[in-house]
Amino acid sequence: MKIAVDCFGGDKSPGANVEGAVWALDRHDDLELVLTGDEAKIRDELSLYNYDTDRITVVHAPEIITGDDKPINAIRLKKESSMVKAIRLLREDKDIGAVVSTGASGALIGIATIRIGRIEGVRRPAFCPLLPTMTGGIVGVCDSGANVEAVTPETLVHNAILGTEYLKTAYAIESPRVALLNVGTEAHKGDELRQKTYQYLSELDNFNFVGNMESRDLLSGKYDLIVSDAFSGNVLVKSVEGTAVELLKKIKRDIYSKNLYKMGALLMKKMFKEEKEFMNYQNYGGSVLLGCEKVIVKGHGSSSSTAVSICIDQAYRMANSRMNENVASAIADFNRQQNLE
Amino acid sequence: MKIAVDCFGGDKSPGANVEGAVWALDRHDDLELVLTGDEAKIRDELSLYNYDTDRITVVHAPEIITGDDKPINAIRLKKESSMVKAIRLLREDKDIGAVVSTGASGALIGIATIRIGRIEGVRRPAFCPLLPTMTGGIVGVCDSGANVEAVTPETLVHNAILGTEYLKTAYAIESPRVALLNVGTEAHKGDELRQKTYQYLSELDNFNFVGNMESRDLLSGKYDLIVSDAFSGNVLVKSVEGTAVELLKKIKRDIYSKNLYKMGALLMKKMFKEEKEFMNYQNYGGSVLLGCEKVIVKGHGSSSSTAVSICIDQAYRMANSRMNENVASAIADFNRQQNLE
Repeated sequence: MKIAVDCFGGDKSPGANVEGAVWALDRHDDLELVLTGDEAKIRDELSLYNYDTDRITVVHAPEIITGDDKPINAIRLKKESSMVKAIRLLREDKDIGAVVSTGASGALIGIATIRIGRIEGVRRPAFCPLLPTMTGGIVGVCDSGANVEAVTPETLVHNAILGTEYLKTAYAIESPRVALLNVGTEAHKGDELRQKTYQYLSELDNFNFVGNMESRDLLSGKYDLIVSDAFSGNVLVKSVEGTAVELLKKIKRDIYSKNLYKMGALLMKKMFKEEKEFMNYQNYGGSVLLGCEKVIVKGHGSSSSTAVSICIDQAYRMANSRMNENVASAIADFNRQQNLE
Repeated sequence: MKIAVDCFGGDKSPGANVEGAVWALDRHDDLELVLTGDEAKIRDELSLYNYDTDRITVVHAPEIITGDDKPINAIRLKKESSMVKAIRLLREDKDIGAVVSTGASGALIGIATIRIGRIEGVRRPAFCPLLPTMTGGIVGVCDSGANVEAVTPETLVHNAILGTEYLKTAYAIESPRVALLNVGTEAHKGDELRQKTYQYLSELDNFNFVGNMESRDLLSGKYDLIVSDAFSGNVLVKSVEGTAVELLKKIKRDIYSKNLYKMGALLMKKMFKEEKEFMNYQNYGGSVLLGCEKVIVKGHGSSSSTAVSICIDQAYRMANSRMNENVASAIADFNRQQNLE
C-alpha cells in the first residue's frame, strides 16, 4: 500500500506533514509513503526521526500552491508544485492508492478533476468532513464546499451515495443514517431543491434515509451523514467550529475575571483541555474529496502532525477498497430508476 | 403607543405572553397593550398580577394556529385565531403600531403579507434574529428563513437595506457593518448569486459594506449585520444555537463524571449559568419580520416571559419610527441605480 503525501501548502508544512507521515508508518506495517515538495527541506525534517528509510521516498517539487493562486491557473502555471506532483503520481503510478494534501482546496478540486477524473456517473466531486457528536460518534456533512455551482436534486442524491459509501468503507458504519439539511423537519419544508431531493431519497432503497434535519440537531448523534448543497454545508461546518471555539475562549476569559473561578478551573483544567480537543475537528480526520476515481484526502490548512497522520489513516482505509465500485453501482441504480419514472 | 400581543401559539402561551406583557408596561409609561386569544384564559393569567387595568385590553379569539396548520390555510380557516385577530387589529386600528407573536412563523409570514402588505419596493419580507457577539454586542442575520424561494441578488440587497435600517432604528447603531455570508472572504468566492450581490453591495453607498464573511466569524464582533439567503441564514442561526446548547450540556455531563470536577464546578456555578444565559438568544429579542408596512416581531416558539417582554421592547422602539420610510427610500435609490446601469 503506497500513499503520496503533499508536504507543502499547509500552515504547518512541511514539519507537520513529515512528522504525521513518519508516525503513520508505525501504525501500518505494509504502508509506504511518497512525500512531494522541496526535497532538501523534507530531508531536513526527516532527519529528526528514526524510521525505516525503505518505506519513504521523496519526490522533489520546488513550487508551492497557495490560497492566492487561482485554481484554474494552479495546474497550468505550477506544474512543479508539491500538489500537482502528488496528483500526477496518483494518476501515473498504479501502486499509489491515495493522496493526502493540506494545501488549497480550490486548486486541489481543480487538479483532481482534470488529472484524476470522476467515478462514472458522478456529476461533481464533494467534500465530506466529519464532526464529533455528543454521543461519542461522528457525523459527516456532504458536500461542504466542493460544488458551489450547479446544485440539483440529482447532485444532492449523489452526495448521499458518496457519503454513505465513504462511511461504510472508512468507518465500518453498516447502514449510515442519512438526513437532508433543511429549514424544518417536515417533508414539505424548504425550497424546490430540498423537496425534490427529499422525494428521491425517500424512494431510493440504497440507503437509510431518516428525513430532514435542522442544523441545531447536527451534533445530537441521531445522524451519520448530512446531505447538503456545498454552500449551506460550508456554512454549517464552519459555524459549528466557530461557535465552539468562541464559546470555549469566552469561558477561558470569564475564568480569568474572578479568583473564585480561577480556583475552580484549576480543578477542571484537564476537563477543559479535553473539551477543546473534543470539538477540534482535525482530530476526526480530513475532508475527503469524494467522487474522484482515486482517493484524495484534504486535511485542514492548519493541520497538526496528528491531523496529517489521521488523514493518512483515512486514505489507507479507503485505498484498495471497493468504495468507488459501490458508488458507481449505486449511481447507476439511481439513474436507472430516474429513467423508469 | 399601542401594541397588540398574540397570546397563543407559543410553547409557554398564554402564561409567558401575559406575564411578559405586564412586565413591559412597567418599563414604558405611554404603552398600552391589546392581548388577543381566549379571553377567559388570558383574564385568569392577568388576575395573577397588579397592573394598571386601563392599559391592557383583551380581544377574544378562541382559535389557535399551530405549526401543523398549513400557512396557506391558516388565514382562511382560522379567522378567529389569536394571530389572525392580532394582525387584523394592526391593519384596522390606526392606533396600534405593532404586533408581537410567538406563534408559527410560516403562518405569520403568510398572514402579514396578505393583510399588512409590503413596504413599497420590497420584494419579500425577511426575518432578522439577533445573536450575541464575543465583544458584548449583537449581530443580526437577515434573512433567516422568511423567503426560502426566489432568492436573487436584488432580494439579498433588500435584506441588507432592511437589516441596516432595523439596527439603526431599534439599536441605535449609527452605521451597521454589513457582511455577506459566503464560503470564503475573497470577493470572487461563492456562486453567481453571491458574486453579483457582492458587486451590488460594494457599489451602493447607502451602507457600510465590509465584505464577505465565513460563518466561523459570526460571533467575532466584527460585524453588525450578516446578509444571507433564507436557507443558509437559517442553517447558520440554528447551528450556532445547537452547538452552544450541546457543548454546554456536554460540559455539564463531564462535570458530573468526576468528583474533582464537581468541586471545581461548585465554585463556578454562577459563571456557567451566565454562559448559558449569554448564549440563549431569546435574551436578545425576537426575530423581526422586516419589509412589511407595519412592525411585526416574532418571538421564538419557546419564548419565556422575559423573551416576550423583550420582543415588546423591540416593537416599541420600531413603532412610530421612520424606519419604513428610510427602507422605502433606500430601495428606491437602489432601483434607480440599477436602471442607470
